[in-house]
Amino acid sequence: MSAPPSHEADAPSGRLGSTQLTSERLDALGQLTEVAGEITRGYGTDSLVESLALVERWMLEAGMTVTRDSVGSLVGRIGPADAPTLLLGSHVDSVRNAGRFDGPLGVLAPLAAIERARSSLEEGAIGIALIAFADEEGLRYRSSYLASRAFVGLFEPAELDITDDDGVPLAEAIRAAGGDPAATSSPSMSFGSVAGYVEVHIEQGPVLQAEDLPVGVVTAIAGQSRGFVDFIGSAGHAGNTPHHLRRDALLAAAEFTLAVDDAMQQTPGLVATVGRIENAPNVGNVIPGKTTVSYDVRHQEDDVRERALDALRARAREIVDRRGIDLDWRHLQDHRAVPMSARWRRTLLEAVENADIRPFELPSGAGHDAVSLAHVTDVGMLFCRCRDGVSHHPDEFVEYDDIAAVIDVLEQLVLKAGLDDAR
Amino acid sequence: MSAPPSHEADAPSGRLGSTQLTSERLDALGQLTEVAGEITRGYGTDSLVESLALVERWMLEAGMTVTRDSVGSLVGRIGPADAPTLLLGSHVDSVRNAGRFDGPLGVLAPLAAIERARSSLEEGAIGIALIAFADEEGLRYRSSYLASRAFVGLFEPAELDITDDDGVPLAEAIRAAGGDPAATSSPSMSFGSVAGYVEVHIEQGPVLQAEDLPVGVVTAIAGQSRGFVDFIGSAGHAGNTPHHLRRDALLAAAEFTLAVDDAMQQTPGLVATVGRIENAPNVGNVIPGKTTVSYDVRHQEDDVRERALDALRARAREIVDRRGIDLDWRHLQDHRAVPMSARWRRTLLEAVENADIRPFELPSGAGHDAVSLAHVTDVGMLFCRCRDGVSHHPDEFVEYDDIAAVIDVLEQLVLKAGLDDAR
Repeated sequence: MSAPPSHEADAPSGRLGSTQLTSERLDALGQLTEVAGEITRGYGTDSLVESLALVERWMLEAGMTVTRDSVGSLVGRIGPADAPTLLLGSHVDSVRNAGRFDGPLGVLAPLAAIERARSSLEEGAIGIALIAFADEEGLRYRSSYLASRAFVGLFEPAELDITDDDGVPLAEAIRAAGGDPAATSSPSMSFGSVAGYVEVHIEQGPVLQAEDLPVGVVTAIAGQSRGFVDFIGSAGHAGNTPHHLRRDALLAAAEFTLAVDDAMQQTPGLVATVGRIENAPNVGNVIPGKTTVSYDVRHQEDDVRERALDALRARAREIVDRRGIDLDWRHLQDHRAVPMSARWRRTLLEAVENADIRPFELPSGAGHDAVSLAHVTDVGMLFCRCRDGVSHHPDEFVEYDDIAAVIDVLEQLVLKAGLDDAR
Repeated sequence: MSAPPSHEADAPSGRLGSTQLTSERLDALGQLTEVAGEITRGYGTDSLVESLALVERWMLEAGMTVTRDSVGSLVGRIGPADAPTLLLGSHVDSVRNAGRFDGPLGVLAPLAAIERARSSLEEGAIGIALIAFADEEGLRYRSSYLASRAFVGLFEPAELDITDDDGVPLAEAIRAAGGDPAATSSPSMSFGSVAGYVEVHIEQGPVLQAEDLPVGVVTAIAGQSRGFVDFIGSAGHAGNTPHHLRRDALLAAAEFTLAVDDAMQQTPGLVATVGRIENAPNVGNVIPGKTTVSYDVRHQEDDVRERALDALRARAREIVDRRGIDLDWRHLQDHRAVPMSARWRRTLLEAVENADIRPFELPSGAGHDAVSLAHVTDVGMLFCRCRDGVSHHPDEFVEYDDIAAVIDVLEQLVLKAGLDDAR
């Protein structure tokens, strides 16, 4: 690992300086990994612990007081202790073979904004707490939003016994991360004086790139329904089975796949995808006997998603009835939509405008730590353009200028949030 | 292995006796396998050699003179040596974990018919040569029609060097099967006085079952074109990519799959199947970036098949152009159709009628040894009903009464063929 950058010699109060420093910090975190040559930082691993230590040092250098919560997440605080607090943050863990931006950008861009606005914040009417969540991706324990759920008090004690692939229980990983398993059942702070939670995240989609915009304000985290449909026909010899004697499962699956896409085209805002298909016996000269497809249906309004799902289910039934084959609809999961609060949408849009960027709103199809925080406070999210929408991959990339834009918007936000709450 | 049935004590001249004996012989061959508990008889293996020896013994008991050709196939002859010869036969090897009927029925049913007509044949005007081909399925050397190609002189000397999975060259397996590698480049007999080749085979399809018929006369072995189409779009996050920014490869593949089926429905006699599909990355929440489908298109008229294929290729192009994705059309193979000769179709239909069965014709979608024999003589085929069209599987099954019907038809055939050629 190269020496981590420090701002001690060169205070990052200017725009260029803070962007440069943020970029260097992203690179420095990107060096911390369990697997050489890639970025893989599971919860409680050495590289995750080092990442938290590094971010803690930067927070301290920025004049923040830093505490660790029950699972080791960092809470860096600046501003008057008894004032309303705006929470900012994201996560520092990663998926396997990840990029440098998903998570860390949402910790380090706010840190840079806080550094730039430091003198105003120290004397302001609002406190800022920057949170570096210790686990969001759930790589090691398959535990979505683990740290943010613990933060708000949604962690279940039974989860302490979950083990990783090597049989190490989560409780042990929590201790390794600097947390305290016994404290996980209580929220990490009192949310009575919290003004809200604002998270910056890469978009993980191509919309901002297509709009030629560095940032966009999130309207809602879409609700999601997902599952599988088995189409069950009969296998047969492709050469010797005439059409009227076929019960081809793949044809039904193909029709359903196109119907899922039709639903997306015909319903504004609906996102509907068949991403996975399994076909059996899957041999060129055998009529498919069983074909399974996944469905993934999302919308920022739950009733729209539910109506679309009902219509798809009816369509699947119509397809198999017409084709004389069978159906097994295996619904796996529903997540309700999480709307961003009107206040933070408005405040973020103003901050975007104040940073001389065209204000633009878009939904989030993916979930984020804001889902957990929405249980206890008003939430808002700012998306940052990422190249070609690629994320969870070494090619994940955010332009230097876009990092600068995010810091600009966040600087406007922390200054404005303080004024708002002072009025 | 149980003791193989013998007819020495109980001459199978009656209808019931010969059907019972044929059924017992099918069972006896079904005991010969390389893999206990299934039927797996690759070329040149011990079980294949034992099968040939058993069939040879039955041929000798039926009064035939038996020779082995260059790859070990048996040729059992009965009737005047200088008369025109009708060839009958099929193969005794099997696929992996096969049924009892695919191949052996086409050797043992003619054997039973010959036994029943023995006295007429010995004094008749035509010779009968019953061939038990030593390899058709190509399980061990991936060599389609190996024995029948060698029989007619279509074996390539270079094939002798092909090795099996254990590195054993084909030449060695030929010697093990009782053949002579040096003789494989010449045909196994002179075809100048051959009147034709008639093969009995299980249908490997459901048509005769649907028609409630034990047998049907084959019109042609369909020509076949097969290959793969790669549809190449872009993978993307299923939650965060709106419709106009998607390049979903699976949707194109689904459209093409339905188009293949449309072609089948709209073109009489066309058989067109997508049996295989591979999708990448094949994850529920990722838009498919690349999807590959197989195509298998068959018709008994080559120009109909070729026109259908051209239309499908144009359709695939139209689909990808409209969707803004790419296409790789990977055509693998064409086999031309092999029409059955008018003479043998007519003769077989008469034999079917003489056996009090409704005459019915159907194409064969699969290839058989008759494909090789068609290079040197007129060919005909008789299909036998198999349960639910299942073949190449332990569930492959032919009813006892249908075995009886096949023997009846073949008895009519050998008696009639003799008369025809005597006229």
